[in-house]
Amino acid sequence: MAPILLNCMGNDHEYIKQQVQVKNPYLDTMEEDILYHFSLSTKTHNLPEMFGDIKFVCVGGSANRMKAFAQFIHQELKLPGNPEEIRDICEGTDRYCMYKVGPVLSISHGMGVPSISIMLHELIKLLHHAQCRDVVLFRLGTSGGVGLAPGTVVITDKAVDYSFRPQFEQVVLGKVITRSTELDEGVANELLQCSSELQNFPSVIGNTMCTHDFYEGQGRLDGALCSFSHEEKLEYLRKAYEAGVRNIEMESTVFAAMCRVCGLKAAVICVTLLNRFEGDQITSPHDVLVEYQQRPQVLVSHFIKKRLGHIV
Amino acid sequence: MAPILLNCMGNDHEYIKQQVQVKNPYLDTMEEDILYHFSLSTKTHNLPEMFGDIKFVCVGGSANRMKAFAQFIHQELKLPGNPEEIRDICEGTDRYCMYKVGPVLSISHGMGVPSISIMLHELIKLLHHAQCRDVVLFRLGTSGGVGLAPGTVVITDKAVDYSFRPQFEQVVLGKVITRSTELDEGVANELLQCSSELQNFPSVIGNTMCTHDFYEGQGRLDGALCSFSHEEKLEYLRKAYEAGVRNIEMESTVFAAMCRVCGLKAAVICVTLLNRFEGDQITSPHDVLVEYQQRPQVLVSHFIKKRLGHIV
Repeated sequence: MAPILLNCMGNDHEYIKQQVQVKNPYLDTMEEDILYHFSLSTKTHNLPEMFGDIKFVCVGGSANRMKAFAQFIHQELKLPGNPEEIRDICEGTDRYCMYKVGPVLSISHGMGVPSISIMLHELIKLLHHAQCRDVVLFRLGTSGGVGLAPGTVVITDKAVDYSFRPQFEQVVLGKVITRSTELDEGVANELLQCSSELQNFPSVIGNTMCTHDFYEGQGRLDGALCSFSHEEKLEYLRKAYEAGVRNIEMESTVFAAMCRVCGLKAAVICVTLLNRFEGDQITSPHDVLVEYQQRPQVLVSHFIKKRLGHIV
Repeated sequence: MAPILLNCMGNDHEYIKQQVQVKNPYLDTMEEDILYHFSLSTKTHNLPEMFGDIKFVCVGGSANRMKAFAQFIHQELKLPGNPEEIRDICEGTDRYCMYKVGPVLSISHGMGVPSISIMLHELIKLLHHAQCRDVVLFRLGTSGGVGLAPGTVVITDKAVDYSFRPQFEQVVLGKVITRSTELDEGVANELLQCSSELQNFPSVIGNTMCTHDFYEGQGRLDGALCSFSHEEKLEYLRKAYEAGVRNIEMESTVFAAMCRVCGLKAAVICVTLLNRFEGDQITSPHDVLVEYQQRPQVLVSHFIKKRLGHIV
């Protein structure tokens, strides 16, 4: 099926460059590819027909939130049909949920690097099998803020590890290899421009630290295990701040690394739920947290509407 | 509330030793502890009343499967009430689901070490706040088999990392520390004895390798990224087999490490869905996979019924 041409696309040469680049020589020789954790397969589903027009993929940890985003973007794009009747494409499994709304795909990825990594492998294969082109990926998440007021939206400059290095360590057959976690600067700047066009929308570009747990790795004093002092925690957070870290979450490095390897433009947009210099527990009332969690959705929706020419 | 005394318990000295040991000096000084990812709190919930009688905690990746397990154990223990009407205790969040059935707690943990680690921090705090004693934890999962027929149940001897070492690396404030992943030998042997009492129940005790992704880290040739040959894959699996590895999954090391630090007896029971020497894709029919996934549940149910004196 012919891809939809968008007003943001360049000449043919650039166009070809924007294909999803699966980096696996065996894939196209397989008779069938079962995307096990999506409950989809190249034999049982016509992936080009189902997904060929996808231009924006939005991923986030929570299944409920990604369903809410799909319903929200459905209304924002003024698409026909009832957003309440939106169907989970991955209803054959409870590992992830997936909703398609026009050119937008909304998928949940659970918590942590391994969980999002499984989803990304199968998503990138899906986009490849579906012959998608010029796809932009967004991770919309929640995070702990480092020296920022709760509710601030952080657009990630560099995704960094626990030592503030912009890299992701991947084990391949028992050996550790390192991948760059650089994200697309153009998309980040475009998102910052979008945020300036919204009312009362506190946002910054900063580094995002990705950890492999929520408690000890992020210096929380309230886990089941804690072997450090309040002062040692603050010292670590201060070092992170000095290295440009403005928020902490648990998926950005592998998201940046895999998108980069596969030639996908990608951005990470996370709202901060608390300022980690001031505490560890998330104590804001439920309705405040719900409003915070909508902010990355509002920003990405604005971006998508501009790209599609709905807003000039 | 008084803990239920079980026929497996020893004298007072051993009894005291079996308390859940939170390793955090700050925890008991906190005015409130919000178990954020469970949507529970010490202020809004009476945790000793809700959970004080818990003796068995069963955790697994999939929310649907852990709900099915709760309904299954409800029937097996012949408890009053309709198992279909079982309520998700964590209904305020979609991060995890949790069901209580008599002395059994069934919780989902998502996929990967970070996801189960968040759950375990909050579970161990919950068991501590609820003053639970003599709790045994089981991880019931699915896995890739190494040299075993699909459907075999592996009871984990040692949980090992990608280099086959029985250890878990935890980052604490930017520094890597190493924790032992030894599991309870007595519980593992008791489970093996239980499996011998069941009909047509292929099971072994073996090492379980825990990886941080499903594709490159496990030597799969069918991910979006693959930089190695079929022969290199087989060589890695052969080395794993020689090191005693019989299955591969994604949560066992942190599960074993955290339970051990906190004085909780723990076991990992995973069924193999395929033999990785023969392939990477999970191609068995849906009903076969469903039956395989019930096997760890059947085994743990048998264990619990014996411990509770339902089976002599």
